[in-house]
Amino acid sequence: MKVALYPGTFDPITNGHLDIVERALKMFDRVIITVARNTSKAPLFTADERLSLIRDALNHNDRVEVEFFDGLLVDFARKRNVSAIVRGLRAVSDFEYEFQMALMNRKLDEAVETVFLMPNEKYTYLNSSIIREIARFGGDVSDFVPPAVQEALTRKSNKG
Amino acid sequence: MKVALYPGTFDPITNGHLDIVERALKMFDRVIITVARNTSKAPLFTADERLSLIRDALNHNDRVEVEFFDGLLVDFARKRNVSAIVRGLRAVSDFEYEFQMALMNRKLDEAVETVFLMPNEKYTYLNSSIIREIARFGGDVSDFVPPAVQEALTRKSNKG
Amino acid sequence: MKVALYPGTFDPITNGHLDIVERALKMFDRVIITVARNTSKAPLFTADERLSLIRDALNHNDRVEVEFFDGLLVDFARKRNVSAIVRGLRAVSDFEYEFQMALMNRKLDEAVETVFLMPNEKYTYLNSSIIREIARFGGDVSDFVPPAVQEALTRKSNKG
Amino acid sequence: MKVALYPGTFDPITNGHLDIVERALKMFDRVIITVARNTSKAPLFTADERLSLIRDALNHNDRVEVEFFDGLLVDFARKRNVSAIVRGLRAVSDFEYEFQMALMNRKLDEAVETVFLMPNEKYTYLNSSIIREIARFGGDVSDFVPPAVQEALTRKSNKG
Amino acid sequence: MKVALYPGTFDPITNGHLDIVERALKMFDRVIITVARNTSKAPLFTADERLSLIRDALNHNDRVEVEFFDGLLVDFARKRNVSAIVRGLRAVSDFEYEFQMALMNRKLDEAVETVFLMPNEKYTYLNSSIIREIARFGGDVSDFVPPAVQEALTRKSNKG
Amino acid sequence: MKVALYPGTFDPITNGHLDIVERALKMFDRVIITVARNTSKAPLFTADERLSLIRDALNHNDRVEVEFFDGLLVDFARKRNVSAIVRGLRAVSDFEYEFQMALMNRKLDEAVETVFLMPNEKYTYLNSSIIREIARFGGDVSDFVPPAVQEALTRKSNKG
Repeated sequence: MKVALYPGTFDPITNGHLDIVERALKMFDRVIITVARNTSKAPLFTADERLSLIRDALNHNDRVEVEFFDGLLVDFARKRNVSAIVRGLRAVSDFEYEFQMALMNRKLDEAVETVFLMPNEKYTYLNSSIIREIARFGGDVSDFVPPAVQEALTRKSNKG
Repeated sequence: MKVALYPGTFDPITNGHLDIVERALKMFDRVIITVARNTSKAPLFTADERLSLIRDALNHNDRVEVEFFDGLLVDFARKRNVSAIVRGLRAVSDFEYEFQMALMNRKLDEAVETVFLMPNEKYTYLNSSIIREIARFGGDVSDFVPPAVQEALTRKSNKG
Repeated sequence: MKVALYPGTFDPITNGHLDIVERALKMFDRVIITVARNTSKAPLFTADERLSLIRDALNHNDRVEVEFFDGLLVDFARKRNVSAIVRGLRAVSDFEYEFQMALMNRKLDEAVETVFLMPNEKYTYLNSSIIREIARFGGDVSDFVPPAVQEALTRKSNKG
Repeated sequence: MKVALYPGTFDPITNGHLDIVERALKMFDRVIITVARNTSKAPLFTADERLSLIRDALNHNDRVEVEFFDGLLVDFARKRNVSAIVRGLRAVSDFEYEFQMALMNRKLDEAVETVFLMPNEKYTYLNSSIIREIARFGGDVSDFVPPAVQEALTRKSNKG
Repeated sequence: MKVALYPGTFDPITNGHLDIVERALKMFDRVIITVARNTSKAPLFTADERLSLIRDALNHNDRVEVEFFDGLLVDFARKRNVSAIVRGLRAVSDFEYEFQMALMNRKLDEAVETVFLMPNEKYTYLNSSIIREIARFGGDVSDFVPPAVQEALTRKSNKG
Repeated sequence: MKVALYPGTFDPITNGHLDIVERALKMFDRVIITVARNTSKAPLFTADERLSLIRDALNHNDRVEVEFFDGLLVDFARKRNVSAIVRGLRAVSDFEYEFQMALMNRKLDEAVETVFLMPNEKYTYLNSSIIREIARFGGDVSDFVPPAVQEALTRKSNKG
């Protein structure tokens, strides 16, 4: 069984992330999404909220697992016998950062491969920080995130 | 009448920004500069100071308006019947970020076009954060910013 | 009256080019498309064919002119009192080449401005050489080019 | 069974290509290498030579097939029930071209996925055209290509 | 005597930095490393620790000096009669930032040249922030930093 | 004595190339310019013309030598005891190609270092192929090339 690992912060999960998960499922039997609890920037959603929004968005799919993980990805990959780390590439700036991370992970454990997938081009413009910004100003994000995330963003904006 | 919108933080305005405004005025009848009051990083100048430094630098030109705006640019663009959002492009890294913002704005309102202008190549090296850094160490910024900005930077540095 | 100049080889014109023309017409009163007769690589279509395919694709629009031009763009721009040269930007590689051309044109005539527009993101993958390649192998290009171009490509492929 | 398609010109195959094949074999059960007979530039090696050098380099591996193919990759992918097209990414310039091709292939057939793999960083500097250049001047390419390719390059250089 | 200036934050110094110093020593008679005491982000190591770790790593070499410096590099360069500022280039994103800094320094003092060197490609993936991240999770960084830095990182991680 | 090697096609030499030579002379005692006789594209000027135009442009400087060289640069560098190969960097696209060449040269001979210099930003837009294009259409290139090159371009254009 081929297992892929899709790590991230997911603050919050977007349709672009979901698009990558679906593509990974074409090639792998199982995808494990790991959510980083600690992030260098203060996240909008708590770790529990972020995990729960992902589970909501994917609840129909028993080939996907969602878990917390903070630590070295290569440790997780080894322990869970992961075939590859999966990452989405949208733009040149993605490419350089992802390349560096992938090379470093390979250095730490040669057996851990990284594969890059390309989201639908309509998600080229999409990232979680732009979504948070639009929602903050009451913009309509229904095309970019699953319904539960949209509601969660609205709740946050009204509180904030 | 063709109106262009030139949004930014302008912390502070530089000769590179002014160069873009002048180029926009060749193509548009009117340019509205909007100053974002809130920025993700703590600005050196208050919103009032930033707006007032722009007005000083442009006071000879009644085809330019300067205003505060925090919110979705597409809302502003629609309300004020703006023909295009204007942005300066200096380098590849600019390009990717600007591209993402422009695609997102188009997604939010298809009628809002973004046009990119190229500043004079002598401003390729120029951005507000480098200017603040140089001024902090007492470097001469008179070639890069209008005189009023230079004085304001000197006052800040002496206080700081 | 604001006139834009949109120069190119157009071998052949694609929906991506047409998208740029439409965006330019939002900002300018008139667009002149100039077709370079001579190109560094042997074109698939003759200059007459390329011009005639553009005219076909745009025949409904009397705000667009199509002409041959070989020479310095700045000479044409001056003679025809053009407000700006218009170019589409899709990717980083576009950006660098276009930047160089625009800076050079500005050096040759400071009055000639270049503005960059962003095509619909669904045309990010599109360029004339990929279109020719797909048509050569009998692929379906009907989503990417106007109908007359599609027919012309089919005729060429059958002959070739 | 998961099958990957690895298309190219391979003029000639290098250790960088072989590195990608090995990585693909970790994730896929089978890799089909297709060699483009016709290339836009005159190749150094004939199509038969290129194919035969690949077979030599891989003869120990019965999970890899090598074939000629000229045409639309998506047609081949469909016919052979391929799970993904595999491409190596070394640098930003690779990225943009590969992205365009992958988006176009997806447009032609949504079922055809492209995955990008990263070669060992010691192959970042490596491409077939540099190899041909070095061999032409009698440089030592033994670190960059399999032994049979090295001999073939020496024979070509002595003839040329 | 040709003197090079190698400025940075060095939080902490890595084998990639040391590689650049060695390359600079092939071309220059002397290299002065300046350590910025103040950084925009909170450093992991104090300024004194960062300086002392560099001295440790280089103590065998009397052609290298290590000093604190906060201020305009061009002032330091002039005062110490430096022939060139030396910077390492690993990737496109490095390039753009470094280019901007170098152009700005040249603007502030035309006599100050910047030269760019390329580290060994095995350090392409390497930067201080990735090193800090790996060490934080107990990963093995012995291939990437000198032994004294490794120990210092372990001490920090255990405390943190 | 520190010797730098500055290789190229120089079809023809521009003020941008001369700018790099001058910067190299600040750091090296001597610069050897090597002119590639054979180029992948048909050059506008013969090898003899290209060499002679460089000599003209530099005749006041006895610290610069100009020679033909076709072959592996590392062979030349070793034979002539060169400290470094010098290359100008203007843009991201330059960067990637130059990086590849420099890594390959280092692979072929570890002792051969490449240093990158940045031309004056007013030469960012400048390359020999744009110069040839402008001259072909009778444009004024006097700001971009030395006088002898300008005359030679005019002679070529009138003949062509």
